[in-house]
Amino acid sequence: MIKAETKIRVRYGETDQMGYAYYGVYAQYYEVGRVETMRLLGFSYKEVEARGILMPVVDYTINYKKPAFYDDEITVVTTISEMPKGVKLPFEYACYNAQGELLNTGKVTLVYLQKSTNKVTSIPSWLEDALKPFFAK
Amino acid sequence: MIKAETKIRVRYGETDQMGYAYYGVYAQYYEVGRVETMRLLGFSYKEVEARGILMPVVDYTINYKKPAFYDDEITVVTTISEMPKGVKLPFEYACYNAQGELLNTGKVTLVYLQKSTNKVTSIPSWLEDALKPFFAK
Amino acid sequence: MIKAETKIRVRYGETDQMGYAYYGVYAQYYEVGRVETMRLLGFSYKEVEARGILMPVVDYTINYKKPAFYDDEITVVTTISEMPKGVKLPFEYACYNAQGELLNTGKVTLVYLQKSTNKVTSIPSWLEDALKPFFAK
Amino acid sequence: MIKAETKIRVRYGETDQMGYAYYGVYAQYYEVGRVETMRLLGFSYKEVEARGILMPVVDYTINYKKPAFYDDEITVVTTISEMPKGVKLPFEYACYNAQGELLNTGKVTLVYLQKSTNKVTSIPSWLEDALKPFFAK
Repeated sequence: MIKAETKIRVRYGETDQMGYAYYGVYAQYYEVGRVETMRLLGFSYKEVEARGILMPVVDYTINYKKPAFYDDEITVVTTISEMPKGVKLPFEYACYNAQGELLNTGKVTLVYLQKSTNKVTSIPSWLEDALKPFFAK
Repeated sequence: MIKAETKIRVRYGETDQMGYAYYGVYAQYYEVGRVETMRLLGFSYKEVEARGILMPVVDYTINYKKPAFYDDEITVVTTISEMPKGVKLPFEYACYNAQGELLNTGKVTLVYLQKSTNKVTSIPSWLEDALKPFFAK
Repeated sequence: MIKAETKIRVRYGETDQMGYAYYGVYAQYYEVGRVETMRLLGFSYKEVEARGILMPVVDYTINYKKPAFYDDEITVVTTISEMPKGVKLPFEYACYNAQGELLNTGKVTLVYLQKSTNKVTSIPSWLEDALKPFFAK
Repeated sequence: MIKAETKIRVRYGETDQMGYAYYGVYAQYYEVGRVETMRLLGFSYKEVEARGILMPVVDYTINYKKPAFYDDEITVVTTISEMPKGVKLPFEYACYNAQGELLNTGKVTLVYLQKSTNKVTSIPSWLEDALKPFFAK
């Protein structure tokens, strides 16, 4: 299992007139969460693209339990729960506020896209190698 | 059934370095879609809040089939497929590009929140009355 | 002189907890304004990039007089007041609400950047040709 | 003089198809910069609003020297260069990338707005008291 925690503070521009962090902003928070998770694996998503692989999102689900507010420090917990197979890389999420209250849970699935051909491809070997140690028995 | 079509052009600031409309921007497109759907019912979401009801999102799911690109004109098709019951108002979505290709499908569920009490409440009677004619046999 | 009017409706996600359209959102509104102005000249900004020219912003100034609110329909008036010379293309802006009240004025200056060399360049001849008729005596 | 440094990493969703951090995103970075500057003074902007004062932006200027790119760590240097007088609070900005290159400079002016009356007001005494020690000879 791979698990990473990222702290993100809600910006003023991310609130809406309800006073909530806008429901759409979590797509960015989740993105930051998985980028930091990848950094744990020893490379940045920037390097992934430099190696000719794009990783667009194919599925995104989020269930909101409680709102976050301006200036709240959110903890984004990002998990890859099992060794990814095939062409998809799924991330699971849970966001908490500073009081430890669960704000939302979610899931984002990425695919590997060969930049040169614009075709979905299977997991690059260098990514597979980086992931494997985390799922070894 | 209630169905509304809204045209939205992808802004430059909504693209990412992949050249796609960023996956997070559809939360805004879907929001615009449901606002325009409500306008069909004879009131704006602005009026809903003025009547003391907030409608936060509790669930959001989106499945991406194809990306949209800068300057593309997207058609957001928003549907309320059956008369909503209880405390939830679910919207279904499909986005198409100008070539009629399906870009993504999704679902967003709102709840009714009494502003004064900050409690979830059942459908306001004026909203129920506005919705009913669309679902009459 | 070239002058274009563009209507933009304030989205919920563009408001902040003050209930204003967030001060940062006008960068997007102004961008939409100049894109629509260019369309008047017979080409889209998308085509500009396809011709190997990028047009990054080098200066941006905005003076806020009054806020816009959720669901307001803003009119963005975009002006190129004189025939642009050298490497810069300046746009002037004024935004109005539906009551005709002036919300803000601003100015954005773009430069022409040759994509292949990443160097600032003088106005492309095809853009100069498209602009000239608007400034003829 | 008050000077604060804030680190912000460019998110994927903040890039545009040029591969730059979108020109409009600096409004948020600057906002984060001044919020952290205020925290140095011993209170959060959240508390400012809780005390009945809103601080909308009335002027915003930015000059772009170099772009920032995805995953770059930006240092936002925020300065209040002299003891603010009257109804305005001006912040000066400079952003640098990790190589120490100057990306942009800017200025944002806020006003104090009495929430209850929606009128511009002079500097609240508690803010004046917090600022004074930084400008004492």
